[in-house]
Amino acid sequence: MENGRTGSVKTVGLAPNLSSGFYGQDIISVRQFSRDNLSYIFGVADEMRAIVKRVGSSDLLKGHVLACVFYEPSTRTSSSFIAAMSRLGGSVIPINEVRYSSVTKGESLPDTIRTLESYADVIVLRHPDVGASEVAAEYARKPIINAGDGVGEHPTQALLDLYTIRAELGQIDGLHVAMVGDLRYGRTVHSLARLLCLYDVKMTFISPEILRLPLDVMNEVKDQGKQVRETYDVHEVIADVDVLYVTRVQRERFADQAQYEAVKDYYVITPELMDGAKQKMSIMHPLPRVSEISYALDDDPRAAYFRQMENGMYIRMALLAAVLGKA
Amino acid sequence: MENGRTGSVKTVGLAPNLSSGFYGQDIISVRQFSRDNLSYIFGVADEMRAIVKRVGSSDLLKGHVLACVFYEPSTRTSSSFIAAMSRLGGSVIPINEVRYSSVTKGESLPDTIRTLESYADVIVLRHPDVGASEVAAEYARKPIINAGDGVGEHPTQALLDLYTIRAELGQIDGLHVAMVGDLRYGRTVHSLARLLCLYDVKMTFISPEILRLPLDVMNEVKDQGKQVRETYDVHEVIADVDVLYVTRVQRERFADQAQYEAVKDYYVITPELMDGAKQKMSIMHPLPRVSEISYALDDDPRAAYFRQMENGMYIRMALLAAVLGKA
Amino acid sequence: MENGRTGSVKTVGLAPNLSSGFYGQDIISVRQFSRDNLSYIFGVADEMRAIVKRVGSSDLLKGHVLACVFYEPSTRTSSSFIAAMSRLGGSVIPINEVRYSSVTKGESLPDTIRTLESYADVIVLRHPDVGASEVAAEYARKPIINAGDGVGEHPTQALLDLYTIRAELGQIDGLHVAMVGDLRYGRTVHSLARLLCLYDVKMTFISPEILRLPLDVMNEVKDQGKQVRETYDVHEVIADVDVLYVTRVQRERFADQAQYEAVKDYYVITPELMDGAKQKMSIMHPLPRVSEISYALDDDPRAAYFRQMENGMYIRMALLAAVLGKA
Repeated sequence: MENGRTGSVKTVGLAPNLSSGFYGQDIISVRQFSRDNLSYIFGVADEMRAIVKRVGSSDLLKGHVLACVFYEPSTRTSSSFIAAMSRLGGSVIPINEVRYSSVTKGESLPDTIRTLESYADVIVLRHPDVGASEVAAEYARKPIINAGDGVGEHPTQALLDLYTIRAELGQIDGLHVAMVGDLRYGRTVHSLARLLCLYDVKMTFISPEILRLPLDVMNEVKDQGKQVRETYDVHEVIADVDVLYVTRVQRERFADQAQYEAVKDYYVITPELMDGAKQKMSIMHPLPRVSEISYALDDDPRAAYFRQMENGMYIRMALLAAVLGKA
Repeated sequence: MENGRTGSVKTVGLAPNLSSGFYGQDIISVRQFSRDNLSYIFGVADEMRAIVKRVGSSDLLKGHVLACVFYEPSTRTSSSFIAAMSRLGGSVIPINEVRYSSVTKGESLPDTIRTLESYADVIVLRHPDVGASEVAAEYARKPIINAGDGVGEHPTQALLDLYTIRAELGQIDGLHVAMVGDLRYGRTVHSLARLLCLYDVKMTFISPEILRLPLDVMNEVKDQGKQVRETYDVHEVIADVDVLYVTRVQRERFADQAQYEAVKDYYVITPELMDGAKQKMSIMHPLPRVSEISYALDDDPRAAYFRQMENGMYIRMALLAAVLGKA
Repeated sequence: MENGRTGSVKTVGLAPNLSSGFYGQDIISVRQFSRDNLSYIFGVADEMRAIVKRVGSSDLLKGHVLACVFYEPSTRTSSSFIAAMSRLGGSVIPINEVRYSSVTKGESLPDTIRTLESYADVIVLRHPDVGASEVAAEYARKPIINAGDGVGEHPTQALLDLYTIRAELGQIDGLHVAMVGDLRYGRTVHSLARLLCLYDVKMTFISPEILRLPLDVMNEVKDQGKQVRETYDVHEVIADVDVLYVTRVQRERFADQAQYEAVKDYYVITPELMDGAKQKMSIMHPLPRVSEISYALDDDPRAAYFRQMENGMYIRMALLAAVLGKA
């Protein structure tokens, strides 16, 4: 137990499956979710979207306080949570400088969390160490929402990705989802692949050899009996995919720069490539992008990445309302 | 078009003139404003001041969300916008660390803006590059308010300056406005001079030789047929001015320190100097000041600079309400 | 007067005693408080706790704006004030980066404060220099609350400490309060000792020789006729104390590391030590702790330190409501 309170945070076990309603529960990992859970939270997110489109906001979480605790910066994610809480009438304690602060002068994560939960009703935690959210959840009485724990999980990102597929294409079952780019280091891709295993989908993984999907994720997908294929070149499958989930191939990943130069164009999504794609399909990206999707595609109706960002707010509104028992 | 999305932001054209009511429009430049626009927004600002003085706040923008995006810090301006939004019942996403954040890891300004507008209803942008707000406005569907783009514009500052003249002296037409100090690098001075061209005013520009008003601004003012004079010494005109707009002469601007020493006292406003001024006139300053206005003048009824700060909040309340269609 | 406005902030006099009701007054020092003041503010804090426990929040300060101005970071204190203001329905301007900001580019503290009070209704100030809050209060028309001025005072911490003693043990008169650890540099300890002088208490100070309570504080306590004792070892008095207020003994304080090693275990609170303590007593700590209280004690009902944090929010809610005339 003393170990769990030192600086070296570690995974102390698996977060429990979510029961219906989510009230008072922690959101730590995509592994907690069943199809029923997802169906429920997507339904709540639909309602949130309807509220925002119709009147901008509600008073559902009026008087509730969210502590947004970011040990490493992530403007996109923290902004999304702040907007979500604000649009539900709640307040936010934004804590973006934990690294500078006396909170961390040798203080253990559990102490920091127990202090902050004495002020707030729910805590969103971003931390560089795998398992940090789980440790926090073990000690906290208030709900913890994992907003990214190092190379571990980022479950709200995976939820918004899946919700976007459903919102854009009306369903998830029966789709062909291709993930392209850096499949080795992208936790986004790993989490989405795991969630997709709950559905009847076909998956294609497109990457350079050195950035292939890790074996453990691949085996999980295969063990679920999913139809899976790997390839180096997006051109090979573009005509057949319903979802093209794009991530960036970073030059720094390659020891041999000639190798990078040789393959980089395989992973850039251009109008020419999209000429060969279905008319009804979606291009997604967790953002930020650099040049892996051509700006000329931004006005293409299939470009879903900015709507994907917006969906992140609805999903986070749904999760905040759910864990606070107000969904 | 691809160019507009790279790191090197540039001016892509002039922001359009404002139509009446301001709903849904961007506030990029003082050049967008006519006398009618100014009269309208000053009237709304008067109402905002009345609300704050009477009851502290209103619910006019309840449920609305402002993203306050500062690529460079400006506590004064961001605080003023946060206060303005709060006093109208709205919420704020404060983004003060864009430089540290993953948002900017190679991401283009348009992508950042399109992400943030998926969370917010209006965006206030401070950016070190000239033209950044205009680029942002080109891509955003939501209103953009320019809170300073490098050496470019800072229109809400110019508006609050002009509003302060009107609030302190009851009118703008017929006044003699003197600007003193660093007239070369101060964008505040340039913007105010441009706005004053819409009125029947006399202007005097007081500065060291090397900090004189740039030729392009001077020519704009002259082309409007304004009565203009330049001088090195504030003593020469102090008896005649209705507004003394003071900015700081920085030692660092002078290559020759002897030159700085020789002239610096011409640009310090003291009680002795003010003995020679009108009883009904206003001393203004965009703040922060260092020593260019004596602290002993702070209790002089003509010292308007702290009221000027307060007016900034009313002007920003007015602009936020206007562009969101609630004025 | 000009001095008060330069960078070198200094104490300019003692803050006045508080009159009843607190409306419009500054909270600068524990010396302003009488037993009646404390009784009043503790009563308001009790009401705040009841509101939070029952419904989470109130609209008491709806439309009011707090400027939270931190010249040095303190996540714990700023979070507590933000939560307090939020739970009363008010808004916050969080200013955590004063050191980076143009506000401080040579600007005097009074100018910064006079600018911020033009936006806000109350200012909470944390500053590294002793006396900064008093200088701010001298120039401000709006109430200033001192959230720590260097090695000077941190009155809201002392108030929450005293409030916790009262909340945990039902009374203050008649108690034996022991303070243990670094009694020399801990302003927390000094302020609490001063406040306790208003009550009929017995005090014991437990520290290494080099970290003994400073003579001026000791003399103040003795001059009030309090029963006082000093000792090196917590074991000596543990059986008799009602409150054990723990602070950390930092290795860096010792020039001679052998000396540190020799004494360090005297100042660690363990379950074995607590076996010898009363069943009804309280262990307190201002947090953050490192290893001076064993984590194994966290579930001991006598461990009051996390409740102490929560009490900080109630005390700050009470103070904010009081100085704004809404208590």
